[in-house]
Amino acid sequence: MVISIIHSARFAAKPLLGRSIMSASASLQPKFDKLFGKVDELKSQFIDILGSAVEIPAVSGDESLRPMVVKKAHFLVEQLQRLGFSDIQLKHLGTQPPPVEDPNLQLPPVVLSRYGSDPKKKTLLVYGHYDVQPAKLSDGWETEPFKLHVDEKKQLMRARGATDDTGPLLAWLNVVQAHREAEVELPVNLITCFEGMEESGSLGLEELIAEEAGKYFKDVDAVCISDNYWLGTKKPVLTYGLRGVNYYKTTVEGPAADLHSGIFGGTVAEPLIDLVQVLSSLVDSKGNILIDGVAEMVAPLTEKEEKLYDNIDFSLDDLNEATGSKTSLYQKPKDILMHRWRYPSLSLHGVEGAFSGAGAKTVIPAKVNGKFSIRTVPDMDSKKLDKLVIDHCDKVFKKLGSPNKCTTELIHDGAYWITDPHSPSFTAAAKATKLVYGVDPDFTREGGSIPITVSFQQCLNTSVILLPVGRGDDGAHSTNEKLDISNYMNGMKTMAAYLHYYAESG
Amino acid sequence: MVISIIHSARFAAKPLLGRSIMSASASLQPKFDKLFGKVDELKSQFIDILGSAVEIPAVSGDESLRPMVVKKAHFLVEQLQRLGFSDIQLKHLGTQPPPVEDPNLQLPPVVLSRYGSDPKKKTLLVYGHYDVQPAKLSDGWETEPFKLHVDEKKQLMRARGATDDTGPLLAWLNVVQAHREAEVELPVNLITCFEGMEESGSLGLEELIAEEAGKYFKDVDAVCISDNYWLGTKKPVLTYGLRGVNYYKTTVEGPAADLHSGIFGGTVAEPLIDLVQVLSSLVDSKGNILIDGVAEMVAPLTEKEEKLYDNIDFSLDDLNEATGSKTSLYQKPKDILMHRWRYPSLSLHGVEGAFSGAGAKTVIPAKVNGKFSIRTVPDMDSKKLDKLVIDHCDKVFKKLGSPNKCTTELIHDGAYWITDPHSPSFTAAAKATKLVYGVDPDFTREGGSIPITVSFQQCLNTSVILLPVGRGDDGAHSTNEKLDISNYMNGMKTMAAYLHYYAESG
Repeated sequence: MVISIIHSARFAAKPLLGRSIMSASASLQPKFDKLFGKVDELKSQFIDILGSAVEIPAVSGDESLRPMVVKKAHFLVEQLQRLGFSDIQLKHLGTQPPPVEDPNLQLPPVVLSRYGSDPKKKTLLVYGHYDVQPAKLSDGWETEPFKLHVDEKKQLMRARGATDDTGPLLAWLNVVQAHREAEVELPVNLITCFEGMEESGSLGLEELIAEEAGKYFKDVDAVCISDNYWLGTKKPVLTYGLRGVNYYKTTVEGPAADLHSGIFGGTVAEPLIDLVQVLSSLVDSKGNILIDGVAEMVAPLTEKEEKLYDNIDFSLDDLNEATGSKTSLYQKPKDILMHRWRYPSLSLHGVEGAFSGAGAKTVIPAKVNGKFSIRTVPDMDSKKLDKLVIDHCDKVFKKLGSPNKCTTELIHDGAYWITDPHSPSFTAAAKATKLVYGVDPDFTREGGSIPITVSFQQCLNTSVILLPVGRGDDGAHSTNEKLDISNYMNGMKTMAAYLHYYAESG
Repeated sequence: MVISIIHSARFAAKPLLGRSIMSASASLQPKFDKLFGKVDELKSQFIDILGSAVEIPAVSGDESLRPMVVKKAHFLVEQLQRLGFSDIQLKHLGTQPPPVEDPNLQLPPVVLSRYGSDPKKKTLLVYGHYDVQPAKLSDGWETEPFKLHVDEKKQLMRARGATDDTGPLLAWLNVVQAHREAEVELPVNLITCFEGMEESGSLGLEELIAEEAGKYFKDVDAVCISDNYWLGTKKPVLTYGLRGVNYYKTTVEGPAADLHSGIFGGTVAEPLIDLVQVLSSLVDSKGNILIDGVAEMVAPLTEKEEKLYDNIDFSLDDLNEATGSKTSLYQKPKDILMHRWRYPSLSLHGVEGAFSGAGAKTVIPAKVNGKFSIRTVPDMDSKKLDKLVIDHCDKVFKKLGSPNKCTTELIHDGAYWITDPHSPSFTAAAKATKLVYGVDPDFTREGGSIPITVSFQQCLNTSVILLPVGRGDDGAHSTNEKLDISNYMNGMKTMAAYLHYYAESG
């Protein structure tokens, strides 16, 4: 990790302010000078505010800490008030559905607010989440996870939430503060949508977005989400796509209860034997999905899209380092990224109901559920995919001639998301990135899904951009989560410049 | 259950004493009259002694109850003393190996004793175990599991240990008591070997048998084990074979840690995908083992052996009732029994290391262990089987061309056991059964293994017979374990007659 941080200096440590003045458009130059200067001036205050925020252990997945999640919402309200935001609302989402210990457990509120409402300006909604993943010192943290540790030597800030997502969320507030103190007018109307349940499935948020689409959010022109990361550690990225996921369960059942393999082995049709036959028919060891009709649904690769993969800061070594192995299915970075981002994949996750412990248990499981999922990409039709998958499993099982019963069902799906990386919002963010970092950003997609992205795009019928602040090695969800100070500072500058470029765009 | 008990009256409720006099050989007739009369006379005492024994919760799998297991050993010593057994020894087996909570936990003693040591008589070793499976009223017992409940209406005795194996063990002591009180000389020298760890792997017993082979057990001519059950509920059986089991683990490993399928799906070789391919190559849904060379090791079916399968009291309905389903691979009773007893089978038990919970987890497991076992039969060579299995898995995996690593290993094996069902010991037991029940016993094997059977046969170089007392529906290891009073009583009579017929045999 130390090595990558040193390498990252290649892009991250150039004299930013100086260059920004050279490359900014004439009319914006003086504003950027003031804004970036102010950001630098307020550095210690911005670090302090992050320190205050991460001290609240707002773990949404821990019921006993729910009051802390709510406390953090109120902390944000205070900050918004301090900065002159208006129409601040805590949107209550009701009772958390089961499974919960406390049947009256309330979901944490969504914090909505506005900064400006000038009808001549564009309106940008910024999304962030103030809840965090669990963390305990005993998990292997070098310092207390809910206490910001500033490592002066490595120039990073370590704490749960530093990069996911308290740091980026506060960066937006800091950008407003910098505008106020630099006496530069905010070029857009800003709306905040900060949720406290992201780490636990964003319960209730999609409904809220739908409900507020014609109300609080009615004038939104674009949505900016800062809740993902650079691909690597060196080069800033803008993210224009996410894969979706359709998660399936294939159940094979036969005997009424688990049987002893001594007594029944060889005389009864074993559900797990049938299941393994079905699972083995789905995908081969090279990663090829063996279900007829799936490959045909994938959007063909255009020349324009392929160009986006050129020169991306990513190597086979990066993948190998991330997996701690040499198990890549592809050798060329472009192939790896395309199979992560723009092609579907089928993963087998496990089997429920079979023997899963250590040791040797001589059981014939009576009912087993095979779990697998398909990562979806444009232009796959989710419903059609379900039918292909279910028909495939039914067909393979039928061929086995087993007296057992086999059913396959979708148990969860999330849509893929793709947007135009040449839209005004992306062009503005690319210009801002070039201004601050001195390099063109990589245009990336992600293999995983962020369902809320799709909700915003669909419900508000607007463009969404993912503008990450942190690096690929920040350890979100892991121990010793951190945010490099340079990423925090340059993130704010990029956000500020983005607002102005976006305001100026056609 | 009621129905089967009523049906069982077909064999079990005939006027036994009357018939026994008619069919016993001339010289034995008066002895059987006396003995069977005495057994009937002592019925309530024999039920009482079982009641006293089952009240001691001798659960060998529960460390906290170890003193109770030891207490039951001492209870048996008292009974042996009362009945005039000699050379009573409590053989201590030392400390129980890990995993244990108490590192000094002592194994329960094996109770050895003799009744008679006349060099002109044959010496029979009877094996039983005094420990029991766990049981709690809340598991679904109709009455307290550690309190004998005599159901007068159903004519059965319900308690943990009633049939497994306290009832059969005490039956041997009762047989001695009946001889003493009927003033009939015991026709053989009897040695008892009662262990207290059978339900927990018979730890230490094999070593004890080997150690005592030339000492305490040096004159043993035959071994009789009453620790299994009739095949069904109606017809007595004698058991002459058990399958063995070789248990394997196939490990596929790749990434250093579990991966997120969103980020890595489609770019890395997934261990579980490879494992499923290997597992699917082992056996088909019809129960055919697909590993080259295995079928060839199975002893051919002889006409004499096949005859033993004729008229066995077993039907497809029995299997369906036992599995609670219609998942049998065969329709003819003979085929079912042969595939349970004399053909190998391969069962898949589960996967360790993969997602095994409910719900939808999008994990790519980094290291997975597939668990499967092969039930072995004559004349399979265990070592050769290991090689065939491991070579097969290696070959299949190699064909996948995966960058992951795959290894297969044997993690446990137990030998099959087969003996001559036409030996003097079996012929004597068959005559005794016919005498008491009025029918020829079914000659059965069992699909599961009882490793100690092999140990006795090999270490003492002698014949072993399994002479069950209880019925197939007794619920050993389950709730509401019971022993029918008729089985208890007729079991003792069969044992007594067996001793005399065996003593008379060539």
